[in-house]
Amino acid sequence: MSKSEVISKKDRVRKLVPLKAKRLRLETQHEPIAIVHTQCTVARSEGLSERTRVELRVGDQKTIARLYQDEGQLVSVDEIGLSETTWRRLGIAEGDKVTLHHPRNVDSMSGLRSKVYGHRLTRQTAKAVFTDIVEGRYSDVQISAFIAALASQSPDLSEAVALTQAMVSIGDRLSWPGDVIVDKHCVGGLPGNRTTPIVVAIAAAAGLVIPKTSSRAITSPAGTADTMATMTHVDLSNEDMRRVVEREGGCMIWGGSVRLSPADDMIIRVERELELDCTSQMVASVMSKKIAAGSTHVLIDIPVGPTAKVRSPADAAELSEFLIGIGDAFGVRVEVALSDGLEPVGDGIGPALEAKDVLEVLECERDAPRELRERALRLAGMMLEMGGASSAGKGKEAATAILDDGRAMSKFVAICEAQGGFFRPPQSEFQHVLCAGRTGRIKGIDNRRIARLAKLAGAPLSPAAGLEIHVNLGDAVSAGQPLITLHGESVGELEYAVDYYLENKDMIEGVCE
Amino acid sequence: MSKSEVISKKDRVRKLVPLKAKRLRLETQHEPIAIVHTQCTVARSEGLSERTRVELRVGDQKTIARLYQDEGQLVSVDEIGLSETTWRRLGIAEGDKVTLHHPRNVDSMSGLRSKVYGHRLTRQTAKAVFTDIVEGRYSDVQISAFIAALASQSPDLSEAVALTQAMVSIGDRLSWPGDVIVDKHCVGGLPGNRTTPIVVAIAAAAGLVIPKTSSRAITSPAGTADTMATMTHVDLSNEDMRRVVEREGGCMIWGGSVRLSPADDMIIRVERELELDCTSQMVASVMSKKIAAGSTHVLIDIPVGPTAKVRSPADAAELSEFLIGIGDAFGVRVEVALSDGLEPVGDGIGPALEAKDVLEVLECERDAPRELRERALRLAGMMLEMGGASSAGKGKEAATAILDDGRAMSKFVAICEAQGGFFRPPQSEFQHVLCAGRTGRIKGIDNRRIARLAKLAGAPLSPAAGLEIHVNLGDAVSAGQPLITLHGESVGELEYAVDYYLENKDMIEGVCE
Repeated sequence: MSKSEVISKKDRVRKLVPLKAKRLRLETQHEPIAIVHTQCTVARSEGLSERTRVELRVGDQKTIARLYQDEGQLVSVDEIGLSETTWRRLGIAEGDKVTLHHPRNVDSMSGLRSKVYGHRLTRQTAKAVFTDIVEGRYSDVQISAFIAALASQSPDLSEAVALTQAMVSIGDRLSWPGDVIVDKHCVGGLPGNRTTPIVVAIAAAAGLVIPKTSSRAITSPAGTADTMATMTHVDLSNEDMRRVVEREGGCMIWGGSVRLSPADDMIIRVERELELDCTSQMVASVMSKKIAAGSTHVLIDIPVGPTAKVRSPADAAELSEFLIGIGDAFGVRVEVALSDGLEPVGDGIGPALEAKDVLEVLECERDAPRELRERALRLAGMMLEMGGASSAGKGKEAATAILDDGRAMSKFVAICEAQGGFFRPPQSEFQHVLCAGRTGRIKGIDNRRIARLAKLAGAPLSPAAGLEIHVNLGDAVSAGQPLITLHGESVGELEYAVDYYLENKDMIEGVCE
Repeated sequence: MSKSEVISKKDRVRKLVPLKAKRLRLETQHEPIAIVHTQCTVARSEGLSERTRVELRVGDQKTIARLYQDEGQLVSVDEIGLSETTWRRLGIAEGDKVTLHHPRNVDSMSGLRSKVYGHRLTRQTAKAVFTDIVEGRYSDVQISAFIAALASQSPDLSEAVALTQAMVSIGDRLSWPGDVIVDKHCVGGLPGNRTTPIVVAIAAAAGLVIPKTSSRAITSPAGTADTMATMTHVDLSNEDMRRVVEREGGCMIWGGSVRLSPADDMIIRVERELELDCTSQMVASVMSKKIAAGSTHVLIDIPVGPTAKVRSPADAAELSEFLIGIGDAFGVRVEVALSDGLEPVGDGIGPALEAKDVLEVLECERDAPRELRERALRLAGMMLEMGGASSAGKGKEAATAILDDGRAMSKFVAICEAQGGFFRPPQSEFQHVLCAGRTGRIKGIDNRRIARLAKLAGAPLSPAAGLEIHVNLGDAVSAGQPLITLHGESVGELEYAVDYYLENKDMIEGVCE
């Protein structure tokens, strides 16, 4: 045993022979992947060959990637093959030299573990976790544990405030001229409840400033951003967003593109694989984006029903308390609108099918879905009152006038054009009609299974996919009468949806044989 | 809108054009991967191109894989590239036809979600989840959420029994001639506490039947299976295990190789990435393997200390209650031995370094680690009494005689030879000595950071890696005196360990400057 340093600096340098970067043009669903040869001496001498994750460095750039090994078809012994995500994160060129390292201890992992073991996140811990997530130091497996741990504990206001602060602190933050910046959000869970485009159009037409950012679907068949993407461009930069809002008073863009809450998309991707929503994460995500977007007055729609996301008035009250409490902590006024969440809203479910309903309401068509119009007008009315564009008790009346005289539609088109163009939503290539098995009265509609059916048909990834629902609660229906039309962009997806429906006909109660 | 079926059977057949299997010889850490061309028409017509996971079918075989896309370097438009795990699960040959499908709804995912939302698992739900995990229907991301959800809730005896039943029901189950089958287990958390090989040797030498299966390390620098693998073969089939036990009365093999608890390894792999242990999962995992192994009497060592896995006598009491309670539910007698968990046991930490300590004790060397010998003799004594090989109160004396007269070592070597050969553990290629910064007395040793240090040096994946600790609690030490010798099989790993030590010198309290 000798006390001298066995590892000299010379050894260090000698061993860190770099590998030549090879772009594999492999799309790996955002997970950064690196592939080395089974016989790669660098990986072996660094003891990395059986490691799960490695750190790659090129100059000052570094990223963590999952390490796979190949026997020679993809890379030679002195090469390292990189997936597109790894390639982009390192910002390198073909043949650049990459060195391989053991990933540093990710300090915030102790915060994750302490969360799993039931401790509340502090602002510092939450910030450390989100920073490491955004900078790519967490694998999807680790993000998944974080989400499950959050979802497992009953939500707590000070933790939700800490999460919100952390999320706001790591993203961009917008500011606007003027004292009143309005915004709206729906907590979701009610298929087809696409009021946002209508409310934004009315509010902006009434002169309010409403820089609306929306998310893509997490577990639902469509998010507002998915629906808007079938009618205009939603991936706008901060500057483009500002230009649109300055010109039209409002916008309807995808929140991810302006980096208001950069951890969100990485978390949402994992939540989608888990088909899971998490309350603390959800309220922090909603409020952080509102705060980062510079909103001062936020209206939140909470549909309540046994198969909606919020199942009982007690749950709705708890959620309201959280949203209002977080608002208070940041000086943002939050108002909550509880609404009936018993059955889907509108006819269409899926990005383009919901867009079609929205346009029917905006264009005041005779067949426009009545319930969607009513909900949008109620919310728009509350918003006009909140924002001072109408006197108390007169909001809905003012909103109705703006919708009926065409100002809302004109404003909607003007906003879309400012965002890069207005176009009509696409139509699906394949349809399939599902009919009542027997004569009866509709006794119940299961929102969750309806949403699942629309997703199996391909929504939201296939924009024209989803379903139209032709009946409402309480309707008398004859045997053979159409209940649902499925829309799909591929036969495979439509087949899956049909199979699922045949196994779950009671998702519409009262008319299945 | 037409009521006729838009999708005919003919369409279905036409669209399901198979792809040619291409073996990529890509090792992907057990995650099944499939790669199709970005322009692959089958994936596009099935709407699969942006899906996370797809089902692959070849004849009657099917498996779920993660779908990546490539622009043409790896596969052509009519090929599907498969990783080694995917290849093995499908059991196919180069050029075989593979069809791509939407993965079926994994029904047990609703059980996972209900667990996340705080509901207790029933036996049925647990069985459904474990079955789907074993059959490859869960991604690592989903397994991670399951583990985090389990770890997040305080453990519950009936849930732990349900988990145990589920795990027993999906694996193989052994039975042995004779009424008494003894077994031991240590819950871990104390580096170097490698008593099992000694206890098994003594018990088998005393005539007891002890078919011991052990796990590889989860979050520790070595599991018993990792240590035994440096001295003999541990990957035995059920038949080979039976042959060894029939011949020698005992064995010391890796539990994963006999499929006693097939979900375990998949869960452990994810726990390793999370650096997380979960009590319910742990007790179910331990007890299911004991039950599946046909044990009737089980002795469980629980080290207790502020930096051990079990931190307080109260936690130890809770854990004991679970282990004994599960035993009761299955008619297995469980005895618990609480032990001091203040500091590491033995000198070596890491597979081969612990094996060296074990051999020193078995060979009754003068320098053999005293504490390891004492602990092993205490446990062996309890086991001899439990199993009826010694009268009450005389167990330790009997065990000491068996160790000191060489019968234990002879039995150990005989068992190793029956398992395929006995060999001496390997020596590390690189060493580095860490010395006391100042003269003082050792006031504390942090088991967790010592374990982490051994892992950074490369244990357990590099068998000879780890560390030797040269001091005990209370020792008087002079400045410059060696505290720890790090052992590594690569320079990279050793460097990491040294860096970590320099940042965490207070892991040995009282002598850092």
